[in-house]
Amino acid sequence: MEHYIGRKALFSKTIAEFDVYSFAGITGDLNKMHVDEEYAKTTRFGKRIAHGMLTASYICTALGTKLPGEGTIHIKQELEFLKPVYIGDTITVHLEVMEVLPPKSYLKITSQIFNQNQELVVDGFSIVKVPKEDYEI
Amino acid sequence: MEHYIGRKALFSKTIAEFDVYSFAGITGDLNKMHVDEEYAKTTRFGKRIAHGMLTASYICTALGTKLPGEGTIHIKQELEFLKPVYIGDTITVHLEVMEVLPPKSYLKITSQIFNQNQELVVDGFSIVKVPKEDYEI
Amino acid sequence: MEHYIGRKALFSKTIAEFDVYSFAGITGDLNKMHVDEEYAKTTRFGKRIAHGMLTASYICTALGTKLPGEGTIHIKQELEFLKPVYIGDTITVHLEVMEVLPPKSYLKITSQIFNQNQELVVDGFSIVKVPKEDYEI
Amino acid sequence: MEHYIGRKALFSKTIAEFDVYSFAGITGDLNKMHVDEEYAKTTRFGKRIAHGMLTASYICTALGTKLPGEGTIHIKQELEFLKPVYIGDTITVHLEVMEVLPPKSYLKITSQIFNQNQELVVDGFSIVKVPKEDYEI
Repeated sequence: MEHYIGRKALFSKTIAEFDVYSFAGITGDLNKMHVDEEYAKTTRFGKRIAHGMLTASYICTALGTKLPGEGTIHIKQELEFLKPVYIGDTITVHLEVMEVLPPKSYLKITSQIFNQNQELVVDGFSIVKVPKEDYEI
Repeated sequence: MEHYIGRKALFSKTIAEFDVYSFAGITGDLNKMHVDEEYAKTTRFGKRIAHGMLTASYICTALGTKLPGEGTIHIKQELEFLKPVYIGDTITVHLEVMEVLPPKSYLKITSQIFNQNQELVVDGFSIVKVPKEDYEI
Repeated sequence: MEHYIGRKALFSKTIAEFDVYSFAGITGDLNKMHVDEEYAKTTRFGKRIAHGMLTASYICTALGTKLPGEGTIHIKQELEFLKPVYIGDTITVHLEVMEVLPPKSYLKITSQIFNQNQELVVDGFSIVKVPKEDYEI
Repeated sequence: MEHYIGRKALFSKTIAEFDVYSFAGITGDLNKMHVDEEYAKTTRFGKRIAHGMLTASYICTALGTKLPGEGTIHIKQELEFLKPVYIGDTITVHLEVMEVLPPKSYLKITSQIFNQNQELVVDGFSIVKVPKEDYEI
């Protein structure tokens, strides 16, 4: 498992209105700052922002498709929402494996999200269980 | 702000295939345990499971629509994924305000999710900033 | 069946970000050139492009709703992807029946897609089985 | 480029009603055999079937995410629709690289799709251009 330490992975996507509206639809969080452009104009944000948990969800994509990849089990997630993400922003998830945790199939991974201006918008870390076939070798 | 302490709120939803497939679509996490029933049958889960972050997203709904409600800013979230949630399960988010944090507009809220068998599937807590009009009174 | 020869049909749509993001969501193809505007800017395309198979899917719409219409069975499809289609482009499918094939219920149809600048973006042909009620007369 | 020959990749998904309805929505092909269960019961299919082009679209996912992967350009696709795919079926795309074509950055790949009963439902082949960084080495 030590070979995992220091490994990195990226995942990026331009957050479309489609993403915010679909996420609002699934979750039922149709808060005005997400779906009401007229209201958003009157706030300090100035335009509609994505749900923090939507942005954070791309961490799960990066974990499940890149590092450690297919078969990963998400155990724990800590998230700090630092800056708003607007509809139209391009976010990039940066993962980096920090530690192998006992039981030996667990990894602690730094999970950070930046916008297109290289501002840290979400800070956090993940604990995942790697797929069985990986940690047994 | 002290009047918030001890307040509770609930939000429930049956997690449909629609939710899991939409979430997979938004995030790009089409891991086989979420979208491949034949594969899922061969795993210890036995059927397709929801993404942990999808289940956790209903915390954001409960915060944003119930407690503290419209205008809430999500600051921090900790999550522990304890048990799988299957397509067809009904989950209920339980929120309970524990503390007022400095600066005085911040609340620490226990955020737990149970399935229809009263099993705790996600444990966590949230830190949120309450809407301005609320904490100024 | 000979009365089909030379018949034409058109179908047009402006390819929205919604279409590309939904298609990415259904298929799981979130390749950066489709969903990452910042990345797309650095490529020879300059902006996000639609999936070739999404563009081609409108052939299936034209076959199934216009020519031969409701009840059509798609048997075979050949596709050549000649030029990129960008989010915001308006594409038009042109169908033209070329031949009746044995068994007599089969038609060979030229299926071409043009963009708003009359550039051929997808070239191809389709073989379809016409609805029973049509070829029996 | 010769190292590509013989490489294989798989992609599988259970085709949900969500997929068929989303695809119908994007394309406008709401043919009754796809979205009208009562009508479908009266046909030889007996229940609603997926659009052939929807099923075929997973070939594009397998090409773009697995083999050759990110950055792939789809050049040509041939498709034969052999058997119906029903809502609820699990399909698996099988890719296998057959040939390197001139110009040397092109690959000919067999693209076949099977259902959960190992029946071939779509047969075809793809021609793709591999990402620049791959064929220059």
